Amino acid sequence: MKKKQIHLNGFIQNSPAPHAIGLWKHDKHEGAKHSTIAYWVKLARLFEKGKFDTLFIADVLATYSEYGNDYKTAVQHAVQVPDHDPLLVISAMAQATNHLGFAPTVSTTYYQPYDVARKFSTLDHLTNGRIAWNVVTSYLSSEAKNLGLNERMPKDQRYNRADEFLDVTYKLWESSWEDDAVIKDKATNTYTDPDKVHLINHRGTFFNVPGPHIIEPSPQRTPVIFQAGASNKGRNFASKHAEAVFVVNHSLQGLANDVEDIRFRAEKQGRNRKDLKVFTMIVPVIGETFKEAEELHQELIQHITYEGTAALLSGHTGIDFSQFDPDQHVEDIETDAIQSLLDIYAKDPTREWTLREAIQHHGLGIGSVRFIGTPTQIADEIEQWVDVADVDGFNIAYGTIPNSYEDFINKVVPILQERGIYRKDYDSYSTTLRERLFGKGEKHLKESHPGSKYKLHYKPIYEIAIDS
Amino acid sequence: MKKKQIHLNGFIQNSPAPHAIGLWKHDKHEGAKHSTIAYWVKLARLFEKGKFDTLFIADVLATYSEYGNDYKTAVQHAVQVPDHDPLLVISAMAQATNHLGFAPTVSTTYYQPYDVARKFSTLDHLTNGRIAWNVVTSYLSSEAKNLGLNERMPKDQRYNRADEFLDVTYKLWESSWEDDAVIKDKATNTYTDPDKVHLINHRGTFFNVPGPHIIEPSPQRTPVIFQAGASNKGRNFASKHAEAVFVVNHSLQGLANDVEDIRFRAEKQGRNRKDLKVFTMIVPVIGETFKEAEELHQELIQHITYEGTAALLSGHTGIDFSQFDPDQHVEDIETDAIQSLLDIYAKDPTREWTLREAIQHHGLGIGSVRFIGTPTQIADEIEQWVDVADVDGFNIAYGTIPNSYEDFINKVVPILQERGIYRKDYDSYSTTLRERLFGKGEKHLKESHPGSKYKLHYKPIYEIAIDS
Repeated sequence: MKKKQIHLNGFIQNSPAPHAIGLWKHDKHEGAKHSTIAYWVKLARLFEKGKFDTLFIADVLATYSEYGNDYKTAVQHAVQVPDHDPLLVISAMAQATNHLGFAPTVSTTYYQPYDVARKFSTLDHLTNGRIAWNVVTSYLSSEAKNLGLNERMPKDQRYNRADEFLDVTYKLWESSWEDDAVIKDKATNTYTDPDKVHLINHRGTFFNVPGPHIIEPSPQRTPVIFQAGASNKGRNFASKHAEAVFVVNHSLQGLANDVEDIRFRAEKQGRNRKDLKVFTMIVPVIGETFKEAEELHQELIQHITYEGTAALLSGHTGIDFSQFDPDQHVEDIETDAIQSLLDIYAKDPTREWTLREAIQHHGLGIGSVRFIGTPTQIADEIEQWVDVADVDGFNIAYGTIPNSYEDFINKVVPILQERGIYRKDYDSYSTTLRERLFGKGEKHLKESHPGSKYKLHYKPIYEIAIDS
Repeated sequence: MKKKQIHLNGFIQNSPAPHAIGLWKHDKHEGAKHSTIAYWVKLARLFEKGKFDTLFIADVLATYSEYGNDYKTAVQHAVQVPDHDPLLVISAMAQATNHLGFAPTVSTTYYQPYDVARKFSTLDHLTNGRIAWNVVTSYLSSEAKNLGLNERMPKDQRYNRADEFLDVTYKLWESSWEDDAVIKDKATNTYTDPDKVHLINHRGTFFNVPGPHIIEPSPQRTPVIFQAGASNKGRNFASKHAEAVFVVNHSLQGLANDVEDIRFRAEKQGRNRKDLKVFTMIVPVIGETFKEAEELHQELIQHITYEGTAALLSGHTGIDFSQFDPDQHVEDIETDAIQSLLDIYAKDPTREWTLREAIQHHGLGIGSVRFIGTPTQIADEIEQWVDVADVDGFNIAYGTIPNSYEDFINKVVPILQERGIYRKDYDSYSTTLRERLFGKGEKHLKESHPGSKYKLHYKPIYEIAIDS
C-alpha cells in the first residue's frame, strides 16, 4: 500500500525577519532583502526545487502597538515592520516557477469581497490555478485605527463578517459565469455570451453585491481556502470553510486530539474528514550530529530579542507584556493567558525559566514545535507526527532565510522522498494547486464544501437569488 | 540648443480589447491573452525596447451597465469586461525590465489611503522607483453598488475625498519615516531607530489615520502622480496634484489652449508651469504609404462594434445610448453632451455622419486623435503637436496589441531618435521614473508640490500634527 503522502508549505512574510524577532542580525539571514524582486524569485525557485506545495505568505496590515501602548518597540526590533504587501510579489514568482503554489493572506475585515474576488481571480489566471487564500479576520487594534474603523471589531462580528464575505466571493467565483460563457465568436460579434453571465444579487448583513463578477472563470474558480482558527469560533469557521487548516500544539498527543477535533467538526458541517488537509508548523534545526543541531538551535535563540518577541506576543494575545518583569519566573506570573501560552516552560520539570528565557526560546518560529537533529532524525520525527497525529503536512518555518530552507530541502527532503512519503517530482497532472492537494481532477471545490452550493450545475441561479 | 525631448507612455488595460471595442476580432490582436504572465512580460520588453517612459494601465472596478440599464451589452462586446487587476501584473514585468516605468490606476473612492500607500510603497521598492499612480475617482454606478456604497458618490464629494486621500498618503510617504531611520545596528539591537519613525495623526472629514506608515522610505517615496481631469473640478485637482496630466483635444489649437489652461492653473496653485508634464493621447496608424495607412485605419474601424462602443460611452457620459436610433444623423440628436462629444462629426463640412458611423469611427482609441500616414508623416505630426501645443509627450493607444506598438516602436521611434527629440537609450542616471520625467536628482516631489509640505526637512512633524 502506498504510504500517506505529506505536503509542505514554506512559511514567510514580506518583512525582514517576521517569525523569529531579532534573527535579522544573523549573518546568514537575507530577510532584509525582502523588498526586492530578486529575493522572492530566489525563494520561489528554492521551494520549487524542494517540490513544496505552496509558499505561504503571512501578513498584518499595520504596526504592532500593544507593548507599552506604543509602536516603537515593534519598529526598533523589526516586529513585522517594515511589512510589505503579500499579493504584489506573486506574479514575479509565478513567472519564475511552474508548479509552486502561493497562499497569500488577505483580511476579510478591511476589504470589500467584490474587490478581493477580483484580485484572486486575476492571480488564479496568472498562475494557471496555483493560488490559495489564507483567510484572516485581523486582530490588531492599529489595523482598525488606520483602516477606517475607530476600534477593533469584536471577534464574533469579525467572524460573522468573514462568513458572509466568503459567501459573497463564492457566489462571484462559482455562480456568476458559466464555464462556456466566453466564446469569442466573431461571426455573431460575441466575445462572451451575455446569457451565460449572471448577477449574484447578494443582499446580506454586511454586504450588498449585485454582481456580475468582472472576471471569467479561472482554472480553480475559488482559490484553495487556507485558514488557521485556534479559538472555538475560529475552529468552527475553519472546519466549515477551510480546505487546508493550521494547528499548533507542542504535545504530539495534544496535536492528535486537535486534528481529530477539527475533522469531527468538519463532519458535523456535512463535510468529509479528509476534505481538510491539516498542517502543523515546525522549525527544523539541522546538524551533522544532534549536538551540532542543538548548538545551532542555541545560536539562533541567542539572536532573538526579548522586547521584540514580547511586542509580537502582546499583539497576538492583547496582553501588554511590558507590565511584566522579564526576570521573574514564568510560573510566578498570575495571568492565565501567559500560563497557557508558555505552559511548556511553566511546567518544565527539568528547570525553571525566567520570562525572558522562555520568550526568547519560544520566539523561534513564534511558538512552533522544533525538530532538532540530523536530517534522518528530523525525517523520523516528521514521519512519527504524521503517523500519530494524522496531520497531512507541515508549514516549515525558519531560523534564517534562505539558509534554513536550503538545509531542509537539500538534506531532509531527499530522505522523505527516499522513504516514499513525499513526491520526487510534481505530478504531471497537477495543473492546479487543489489537484496537488486532493488529487487528479479535483480542480474545484468539493461538492460537500459550502461554496459548492453556488455552483451553477448544482442549482439554478434563480434559486440562489431567492436564497440570498 | 537641445530640442525639447518628448515622453511616451504605452496605454493599456488588463482586458482583451479595452480601448477599441470589437478589435478583439482582429487576427493580429493578442489582447485575449491578457490573463497570462507571458503577455505582460512580452509587452513590457517591447516598451522597454522602445525606450518608453511608462506602461500606463487604465482600470475600472465593475461592469459597464448604463447602456439599456444592463450589463449584457458590455459583456457581449468585451467592453472592459473581463477586466483584471492592474497592480498584480507589475512585479512580473518589473523582473523582465530595468528601466520601464509602470503607471497603474487606483481609485480614491473605494479604498483606504493607509492600504493604498502600502501598496505603492511595496511597488516602488520592488521596481527600484519606477512607479507612478494614476489617480481616479471612479465614475461607474456599478462600482458603487458592488463596492459598499448604495449609489455613486456625487462628483464634488468624490474629488473632496480624493484630495484628502492624497493628503493622507503624502503624510505617510513623506513624513512618517526619516531617510536614515533604518540603521540595522546589531550592536544596539536596532533594525530601525524608533525615534525616526513618526505618527502622522491625520484627522479629517473622510479619514482618521494615526500611522505610522508600515513601510520604510522607497526610492521615490511618493509615486509619480498621474491624473486626467477633464471637468473644471478635475482640472483644478490635476493642476494641484498631478505631475503628469492627460488632455485630449482633436483640434491642435484647442489642445494648445488646454495645455496653457492647465499650466496657468498650476501656477495659480503656486507651482511652476513646467512642474507638470502634459500628455495627449494618439492612435498612430502606420503604412508604407499614406494610402496604405488609411486602408489600415478603415480596416481597424470596420472591426469596431457600435453597440459595444455605445455601451462604453454610456458609462463615460452617463447617457444611455440605447435610446438613440443609430441610423439618425449626429447633428439631429438634440442632446448637448452628444453634440459636444461628437462635435467633429456633427460639424464635419465634408459629409454627414450617422450616429453608428460616428461612434464606430470615434471608437478607435476611445476618441483619441489619429496620426495616420507613413512613419515620417507621423513623426512630423508628433513634432508639430509638441511645437504648437507645448505638450510634453503622448500616450500611445493602439488598434491591435502588440502589432500596433511593434509598428510604432520599429518604424516611428527611430525617426524621433534621429531627429534628436527622443532618447536613444535610457539615461544611466535615471534610476527612478521621476528623474526620467524631470531630470537628474529629481527623485522626490518638487518643493512646490502640495505633498512637499509634509517632507520632514520642510517642517517639523509636530507642526504637521497641529495643522492636520
